[in-house]
Amino acid sequence: MVKVTVIGSGNVAGHLITAFENSDSLELVQVFSREVSKVSHLVGAGAAVDDFRALADADLYVIAVSDDAIAEVSKRLPFAGRLVVHTSGSMPPGILDQKHRRGVFYPLQTFTRNKPVNFREIPICLEVEALSDYATLETVARSISDKVFAIDSNQRKALHLAAVFASNFTNHLYKIASDICAENSLPFDILIPLIAETANKVRLLSPSDAQTGPAKRNDSQTIAAHLELLPDERRRAIYEILTQSIIDDGKKL
Amino acid sequence: MVKVTVIGSGNVAGHLITAFENSDSLELVQVFSREVSKVSHLVGAGAAVDDFRALADADLYVIAVSDDAIAEVSKRLPFAGRLVVHTSGSMPPGILDQKHRRGVFYPLQTFTRNKPVNFREIPICLEVEALSDYATLETVARSISDKVFAIDSNQRKALHLAAVFASNFTNHLYKIASDICAENSLPFDILIPLIAETANKVRLLSPSDAQTGPAKRNDSQTIAAHLELLPDERRRAIYEILTQSIIDDGKKL
Repeated sequence: MVKVTVIGSGNVAGHLITAFENSDSLELVQVFSREVSKVSHLVGAGAAVDDFRALADADLYVIAVSDDAIAEVSKRLPFAGRLVVHTSGSMPPGILDQKHRRGVFYPLQTFTRNKPVNFREIPICLEVEALSDYATLETVARSISDKVFAIDSNQRKALHLAAVFASNFTNHLYKIASDICAENSLPFDILIPLIAETANKVRLLSPSDAQTGPAKRNDSQTIAAHLELLPDERRRAIYEILTQSIIDDGKKL
Repeated sequence: MVKVTVIGSGNVAGHLITAFENSDSLELVQVFSREVSKVSHLVGAGAAVDDFRALADADLYVIAVSDDAIAEVSKRLPFAGRLVVHTSGSMPPGILDQKHRRGVFYPLQTFTRNKPVNFREIPICLEVEALSDYATLETVARSISDKVFAIDSNQRKALHLAAVFASNFTNHLYKIASDICAENSLPFDILIPLIAETANKVRLLSPSDAQTGPAKRNDSQTIAAHLELLPDERRRAIYEILTQSIIDDGKKL
């Protein structure tokens, strides 16, 4: 059975630890955190360690820490020649200390503390420097997910950027919508079925085919009325640039 | 039993007709369309009419046509003093001919032809000019949906604007993400679980609390790297304005 150790106690680490713990096809050896109290409830008390020197042998070490801590953490691991990966969407394997066999284990999802996710549906994007390490990484990924992809660094960077548009920016549009609701004594909940269906539609239709609304119809009267309802300059600029982008996309079809 | 007639054969009309047909607590009397073939498969052949003079008595006439056709259609109805509503998010009841008792029946959803929706979960926003008409409209709305709201014209305009941000613009961000995927030989499907979870999160968390990503963390290194990956000027401008908006929102908290 493949032995895995997780280093980190943040959001991604927590969800990964739970997924690894729940898998029958691998062994979660240890979890490292500077504050063991953050992870000891997820693994046995003995398996949570806060001293790098206490790290036992494993086939794979998964560093799930913030991007700017990856290099330093990988350097402090007191061994060499073992398979070490990070979980970042935007960093190459090369950010890890060169004493390791290096790779990336990037779960493409937005994680929320205390909100369980079904890891089997989460795409995991893998990269290794030495092809001989791919099988181990793939075994671990498949033990928790049905969607495993080999993705190189350039693709992963692009994917991370696409994810920012599809998730972070989308959520910010929800935020603007929720502000508009609040300013007009409307419950944000009234938009939830629309938000759900909008996300659901692109399972069946391409985003181009799914596009609806005043911009798609180039309905200048409604667009003008909407701009009048937006006293905030920033919001008006966001409305204008997205509307123009939809209109121009329509011209390309 | 309340008698309802639908006028129109577009996307919204089609979904409304199906919902009315499936409800046991109202009677769909007729459907008017200039092309009866578009609706006769949804209702009995005898119930589909293409001549305004053939319209029978009903308690409610629902005009589900494009915004710019509402006024004209309402004028051509060969009767007066009956309850007539439109389904537009951006028009007041007053756009209907003044010979009618007027109102609005606005289902807040993005409809796709041939993709069934569960109407019981779709918010329906009602407005009437005469309060005495509200009960009839509410009865009809509740016969197909569990989410019925009394919303005045100013609120509905704001809601429609919020819906443009939460749905139309969101879909356009999916489109940009799908372009980025295509340009990097990545399947768009890889983003679907992320899109679904992003939409799902705001059922439990406010959009502010759900925000994640480089802009939220003010991670200037990743933001700079992303901007370098965006050769298209429009896309870069969209990335910049949404990023700045998220950063500035963070400062307000």
